[in-house]
Amino acid sequence: MPVNQPVTAAAVVVGVDFGTLSGRAIVVRVSDGAELGTGTCDYPHGVLDRTLPNGRTTLPPDWALQVPEDYREVLRVAVPAAVREAGVAAEDVIGIATDFTACTMVPTRADGTPLNEVPELADDPHAYVKLWKHHAAQSHADRINDLARERGEAWLLRYGGLISSEWEFAKGLQMLEESPAAYAAMDRFVEAADWIVWELCGSYTRNACTAGYKGIYQDGTYPSRDFLAALNPGFAGFVTDKLDQSIAPLAGRAGGLSAKGAQLTGLPEGIAVAVGNVDAHVTAPAARATGVGQMVLIMGTSTCHVMNSDALREVPGMCGVVDGGITAGLWGYEAGQSGVGDIFNWFVTTSVPGEYAARAAARGIGVHELLTELAADQAIGQHGLVALDWHSGNRSVLVDHELSGMVVGQTLATRPEDVYRALLEATAFGTRRIVESFVGAGVPVEELVVAGGLLKNPLLMQIYADVTNLPLSTIASTQGPALGAAIHAAVAAGAYPDVHAASAVMGHKNEGVYQPVPANVAAYDELYSEYTSLHDYFGLRTNDVMHRLKAIRRRAVSGRSSREPQEVA
Amino acid sequence: MPVNQPVTAAAVVVGVDFGTLSGRAIVVRVSDGAELGTGTCDYPHGVLDRTLPNGRTTLPPDWALQVPEDYREVLRVAVPAAVREAGVAAEDVIGIATDFTACTMVPTRADGTPLNEVPELADDPHAYVKLWKHHAAQSHADRINDLARERGEAWLLRYGGLISSEWEFAKGLQMLEESPAAYAAMDRFVEAADWIVWELCGSYTRNACTAGYKGIYQDGTYPSRDFLAALNPGFAGFVTDKLDQSIAPLAGRAGGLSAKGAQLTGLPEGIAVAVGNVDAHVTAPAARATGVGQMVLIMGTSTCHVMNSDALREVPGMCGVVDGGITAGLWGYEAGQSGVGDIFNWFVTTSVPGEYAARAAARGIGVHELLTELAADQAIGQHGLVALDWHSGNRSVLVDHELSGMVVGQTLATRPEDVYRALLEATAFGTRRIVESFVGAGVPVEELVVAGGLLKNPLLMQIYADVTNLPLSTIASTQGPALGAAIHAAVAAGAYPDVHAASAVMGHKNEGVYQPVPANVAAYDELYSEYTSLHDYFGLRTNDVMHRLKAIRRRAVSGRSSREPQEVA
Repeated sequence: MPVNQPVTAAAVVVGVDFGTLSGRAIVVRVSDGAELGTGTCDYPHGVLDRTLPNGRTTLPPDWALQVPEDYREVLRVAVPAAVREAGVAAEDVIGIATDFTACTMVPTRADGTPLNEVPELADDPHAYVKLWKHHAAQSHADRINDLARERGEAWLLRYGGLISSEWEFAKGLQMLEESPAAYAAMDRFVEAADWIVWELCGSYTRNACTAGYKGIYQDGTYPSRDFLAALNPGFAGFVTDKLDQSIAPLAGRAGGLSAKGAQLTGLPEGIAVAVGNVDAHVTAPAARATGVGQMVLIMGTSTCHVMNSDALREVPGMCGVVDGGITAGLWGYEAGQSGVGDIFNWFVTTSVPGEYAARAAARGIGVHELLTELAADQAIGQHGLVALDWHSGNRSVLVDHELSGMVVGQTLATRPEDVYRALLEATAFGTRRIVESFVGAGVPVEELVVAGGLLKNPLLMQIYADVTNLPLSTIASTQGPALGAAIHAAVAAGAYPDVHAASAVMGHKNEGVYQPVPANVAAYDELYSEYTSLHDYFGLRTNDVMHRLKAIRRRAVSGRSSREPQEVA
Repeated sequence: MPVNQPVTAAAVVVGVDFGTLSGRAIVVRVSDGAELGTGTCDYPHGVLDRTLPNGRTTLPPDWALQVPEDYREVLRVAVPAAVREAGVAAEDVIGIATDFTACTMVPTRADGTPLNEVPELADDPHAYVKLWKHHAAQSHADRINDLARERGEAWLLRYGGLISSEWEFAKGLQMLEESPAAYAAMDRFVEAADWIVWELCGSYTRNACTAGYKGIYQDGTYPSRDFLAALNPGFAGFVTDKLDQSIAPLAGRAGGLSAKGAQLTGLPEGIAVAVGNVDAHVTAPAARATGVGQMVLIMGTSTCHVMNSDALREVPGMCGVVDGGITAGLWGYEAGQSGVGDIFNWFVTTSVPGEYAARAAARGIGVHELLTELAADQAIGQHGLVALDWHSGNRSVLVDHELSGMVVGQTLATRPEDVYRALLEATAFGTRRIVESFVGAGVPVEELVVAGGLLKNPLLMQIYADVTNLPLSTIASTQGPALGAAIHAAVAAGAYPDVHAASAVMGHKNEGVYQPVPANVAAYDELYSEYTSLHDYFGLRTNDVMHRLKAIRRRAVSGRSSREPQEVA
């Protein structure tokens, strides 16, 4: 790839962020990272979780599919809209890059045609894109994990000891066993992150990020044929026949924009198309946080933690560590909390009296804002509560989705803002536990850099700084992933020598805007030790009550109890 | 006392129930227990918890006083109102009995004059009635308990190992140490239950119930002079100088209605006045539940458990066991749960969205009714939750008011009706734990008999039957305590040989209206074992987090933390 190619002052790049329900394009000036225009496009089919588009074929629970044509629609609609809004000429665009949800898998023919576009397969659910939150392959993931533990597969520790049902091998095995016809017709099982790049430049390269985090690609190799055959003899060739593809580094040039890609986007043929990428990971350079020890927290409904390090360590409970997984040349670490903003939203929806909603409405603010204001107006520990933030399970460090939420300390004087604050704090304690797992394994964490919608809550940000005793910066863009993609486009186009250099110029960060307050740090140390003892009691299953309650719940719902069973919401 | 005195068909008795905020009189026909009329009277001064009636003398936190004249006002207003509503002639009234909150203490001169009516003491808070919920003598109770444990006082085990700050000795010691003048001026320290009887018949007899439960009167004796002197030399004569008085059995005749009593009530001079009694205990005969093994649950904001037995046992965590404490001739046991209806009310007030209130209002029902209906419409265990019902602390069997509430098992699918049901169940589990403590100590429990406002919730009643695997009856009167008092009046008047006989005719009970359903019992056994393990983990202080959180909260409120302290609601 050409480096230090002269860049005109007018040069811009396009970043396109493919989310769960929509895509968003951004036009960014290469010389200074100015965000000049954006365009968005909702996926016409959204998420398929009840029926296929034919309206007849119903889907079982836990399925979540998408339609690839919807992704093309984003290129057709959002990219030109962003260019228009930016007021730039198409010929000033020197590169385009994308980021995607992951692990989101497109089964294709050899030429990249999605299987659902093959007429005889259009009514087979397995011919469609399996979205990241397709959770119907848990039994397959369980088998993969059991076998890997049994055989002592070394790669398992690169994933904190557990492969997710969301990832490539579980989704592939489900497909083989539930639709042998679709599996047989599938030439390539492609990350959507790579498929969209294939659509743009006409050639298929596999990005190092998803190959590592979602594809169990470690030290230049995948799980062995032998291992796969032991799962199912028909699965023996999964890697060689469906998955394997040359790996390309992030920010590399996947190719030039093809005639088809130019037609889709309205951008000039031949401009650089960057290697595919993932929404969380691509956010790091947008927040100027690709350095060693800068932990990026993408905080929304859930939190994803990504961080570069120059050291390879096996961190207990992480999601994964991948060579070049965030930035080429460094080890990229990932961890996560399954429920964060989701928990706050659940609380506001289910547990706050109408009086609060009325007070908020009268002042023209939201209930979250009102609760935050009331919660801020108290001393640390004054609410007398500790909560566990596992309403959606625990991704890191316990890797256990059968865990659940808990609150202790309630009295007749406990108010909604007290519980709200305890829940904010619980998620901060969860992040501290992750930080400690990294530090304990020899991967230092020096700074938190927050991206995502929750950075708008200053109380939450201060709590995170105080609880972790780390300086906290925030991204200074509302378009983190798309900006991150644009930075990758600039590197792929040769405007900067690497992502670090591009990030330093084009990224936007509010440096250290929240600093830990020593008195608060001390107060939270005390509450955190309570969190820790409860975390270990329930999470390490000294008392396995959470697992048992979920089992009891399932039995009750399935009608073994004395009353008429109900659908669980 | 005359027994089997001929009773006319027209003969009636009056029962007067002195509650926390008001008094209530009832006129009951002796021959069949028909409730003919009621009258009520709010206490003009209510509860004094901020200032004395002079408006100048302010009271510290945790104080709760009353004015004896308010009790006389009930006699003046409520009794004639009840007689009027009953449409009976005053001369048909053959007896009157009362029940009172306890331990509620009136300091008096030798003639029964309350100290606050002595002009020179009217501005001394210690001259007023200390209401049962006066909680400012905790440090004095602590010293009593520490010393009793140290000296191995045998009576301590009759109270489950702990004397309450609400009781006579703690309140008396506080008075001595904080107002020596009032203490010196006090000739008698009288239970309000006995003081009102003194007002009615002109002579002071001490009832066996409060003497035993609140006055540490056991096996014919009180704590020794030696013990009292060790607490404070000035306290050595507390029993002999202030407390000791001949003990009278419940339902005994304290005397005849005096001229003064007749003038107060408008009832005929000379009719039987029964020995004083306590609201919870007097409810047992009203519910036809004075038999051995019939546990009466008075379920309101809190629950009081009272039960007769022919055996004396030391039941861990009970409030007390007293010879003739409920019915003469049997051992009366008492236990309690500090928060029951209070917890449900707290939940409805603080944790239920406006949408539920609107739905309930649209249907013309309360939020409790709506939540109950929704909670009833699910299988046992379907909510996936277990709660601990200690929002107000735990009276039995842990006797620890520094404990607090807890909920475990919450997910993003958890709804308000789920938590509400979990709280209903938690209180039932708490009662089962009490029942098991009795059974384990050799005091069998055969039936639950529920009185109090919560018996109106059929889901709650069925849960109690299923959780305890006991048949559950309910009282068939809305005036339990006043009816119970009336029954005692009938016995004191000689209309029945004893309370059991009077209760069988005059009491009202819905016999076994809730029966345990075997499948439900089995389902709850499983949830109860989860409750038990959490009960012991938090309650037996394997993890002392609840105590520590309360300490942290106190420190935070008192301003040692980093933010500006606030008043705790």
